[in-house]
Amino acid sequence: MTTTGKDVEELWAGGHPVYLGAHVLPMLARWMEFEAPPEQCYVLGDSTTLRQCLPELLTYVPHLQHAEPIEVAPGEPSKSIEVCTAIWGHLSDREAERGALVVNLGGGVVSDLGGFIAGTYKRGIRHVNVPTSLMGMVDASIGGKTGIDAAGIKNLVGLFRDPLGVYVHVPFLRTLGKRELLNGVAEMIKHGLVRSADHYHAVREAPLHDIGVLAPLIHDSVAIKCAVVNDDPHEQSARKLLNFGHTIGHAMEAHSWEGQQRGLLHGEAVAIGMICEAWLSWRQGLLDRGSFDQIEAHLIGLFKGYAFNNDDHHRMLELMRNDKKNAEGGFRFTLLRGIGDAVVNVPLNAAQVGEALDHYRLLVRHHAAHHDPEA
Amino acid sequence: MTTTGKDVEELWAGGHPVYLGAHVLPMLARWMEFEAPPEQCYVLGDSTTLRQCLPELLTYVPHLQHAEPIEVAPGEPSKSIEVCTAIWGHLSDREAERGALVVNLGGGVVSDLGGFIAGTYKRGIRHVNVPTSLMGMVDASIGGKTGIDAAGIKNLVGLFRDPLGVYVHVPFLRTLGKRELLNGVAEMIKHGLVRSADHYHAVREAPLHDIGVLAPLIHDSVAIKCAVVNDDPHEQSARKLLNFGHTIGHAMEAHSWEGQQRGLLHGEAVAIGMICEAWLSWRQGLLDRGSFDQIEAHLIGLFKGYAFNNDDHHRMLELMRNDKKNAEGGFRFTLLRGIGDAVVNVPLNAAQVGEALDHYRLLVRHHAAHHDPEA
Repeated sequence: MTTTGKDVEELWAGGHPVYLGAHVLPMLARWMEFEAPPEQCYVLGDSTTLRQCLPELLTYVPHLQHAEPIEVAPGEPSKSIEVCTAIWGHLSDREAERGALVVNLGGGVVSDLGGFIAGTYKRGIRHVNVPTSLMGMVDASIGGKTGIDAAGIKNLVGLFRDPLGVYVHVPFLRTLGKRELLNGVAEMIKHGLVRSADHYHAVREAPLHDIGVLAPLIHDSVAIKCAVVNDDPHEQSARKLLNFGHTIGHAMEAHSWEGQQRGLLHGEAVAIGMICEAWLSWRQGLLDRGSFDQIEAHLIGLFKGYAFNNDDHHRMLELMRNDKKNAEGGFRFTLLRGIGDAVVNVPLNAAQVGEALDHYRLLVRHHAAHHDPEA
Repeated sequence: MTTTGKDVEELWAGGHPVYLGAHVLPMLARWMEFEAPPEQCYVLGDSTTLRQCLPELLTYVPHLQHAEPIEVAPGEPSKSIEVCTAIWGHLSDREAERGALVVNLGGGVVSDLGGFIAGTYKRGIRHVNVPTSLMGMVDASIGGKTGIDAAGIKNLVGLFRDPLGVYVHVPFLRTLGKRELLNGVAEMIKHGLVRSADHYHAVREAPLHDIGVLAPLIHDSVAIKCAVVNDDPHEQSARKLLNFGHTIGHAMEAHSWEGQQRGLLHGEAVAIGMICEAWLSWRQGLLDRGSFDQIEAHLIGLFKGYAFNNDDHHRMLELMRNDKKNAEGGFRFTLLRGIGDAVVNVPLNAAQVGEALDHYRLLVRHHAAHHDPEA
């Protein structure tokens, strides 16, 4: 799986390749003809991706026409032990063997779920990721992290399991609405903020509805993700850079699904997390005020505000306490020293986190009062 | 974790060390003092091992006195997704972090279950295995295989996950009854049959109730297991040697738990599997008749026969069909070419397997008629 024509570029992320370019699907088709018996192939997707993307995949990879689709409901609730158990049983009923192949066709939910199932069925069968969302392409499908939610905690259960390859076919983005595109843009912004000021500014200035303009930026964002994963595949240190915005973001996301408002998408929650954590970076004397103001104005302009009140702080801190990213009882944050430069493992306490939440709440109120015609 | 005093011997199995000798528990104690925060240690055991072995473990490893015991019911039914889910949730409630350590104190069920839970909680926390059964010491705790039963299939779900170390403390065997000891002896016999005629004959002639005599044999059996795992940690080829007796044995074990008789222990089922598969080895012209007769007489004398009838063949073949060890629809067996010499991936069909089951059924009837005073 190393030969690439001029229309396919190969990057490397820890233990697996990522393919980009116009011809990634024909390349997958050629590989499968030799390496994957059609009766042992399964395409895992949600009802949306199987409807919107599977037909296009099949035109490029006719080998999959006899593969059995496995459908889950769209959204985070599919990342459950119950769904895993049903699919493990289904694979067993179909006599899937160790040589079987799972093609994960979808966004982050599908690759998180499918990677976990493939990594644990009969102690591991093969899988490839074919991301269909922007979030999947630039982030979730790359780097071998898989995860299932349990006990109310996002990704409580999972493993590091490399796909055989990630095939980034940008035209699938045509199936996305604006909200889903923005969801992925949040992670591209993060990649810029922690590693490349140039990438940050390029994403900031791009017309996001234009897939032609987006394609080279996706390439750059994937390259940043790959470089960070290569430095530290199992998140011992450097990979924690990618947690910027995620400590508060994960808690915000989980909180939103518990409550009465509509749930936040992962990227929307990370955008809020990035505002809070950029503010903490400034408060800790790491980030200059000008850069912070610039980041905050950008993010609050791009993503809808999330309203909560002081009483919610307690629950959010509780959710944060059970985050995988903490050690020895304290909170450990990835913070910014500048645009394109981050530092990991900064210890902060609950009071400091609470101040950041206060700051965000006031920001949302202020922004709504000045910018939202309905306010 | 590489220094060993003269009273500890270190062997290597794929990705982890195995410690043997009189001082393995003091060695574990010294390591834990430096590397494992007491409030982040958990001892997983079943109600028997926690009662019979934990007090002795605590005298050697006082560091664990404040570790929280996690208790499961003894036996195979604890290797379930429901038990995993409960323990993942429990670890989360206790705010177990990525630096946490799980000490698996028990036999094969405990190390299979605990290794899976540790390997998947927050994408992997650390675990060590302290086997308390002979089966655990010579086989199950070594080599990184973990597994959970699902959809009625043994070890359908699992992963390869190395423990930090395996600490073989032979005196724990004093807590075992004769049936449990024999359960482990079956795997020692298997190690001899597939890799060392000397070991086979030594185990055959040893007085099994004498732990002093057993100790050096345990060492040799562990060394064989380690050597095979080192050749092929992820069971691509050579490690399949260790599957001798297991293709039919697993089906026999699963079948026994579905029915009205008392369920077979793993080693008891493997002993039956070894008779059937030695018979197949002879029928395939691989094993000479004299060696086969010797193996059969030994095993049928040592292990109680399992009665079933012709109608059960269908279900047993069905159970075999979903075994992890098969590929491309056929059965793949590890067979003997001689005592101490095995060959992997021998293709056989259902009719041949059925003949082996017939042979075993007649053997049991014949043996009962001649040897069992109650018959």
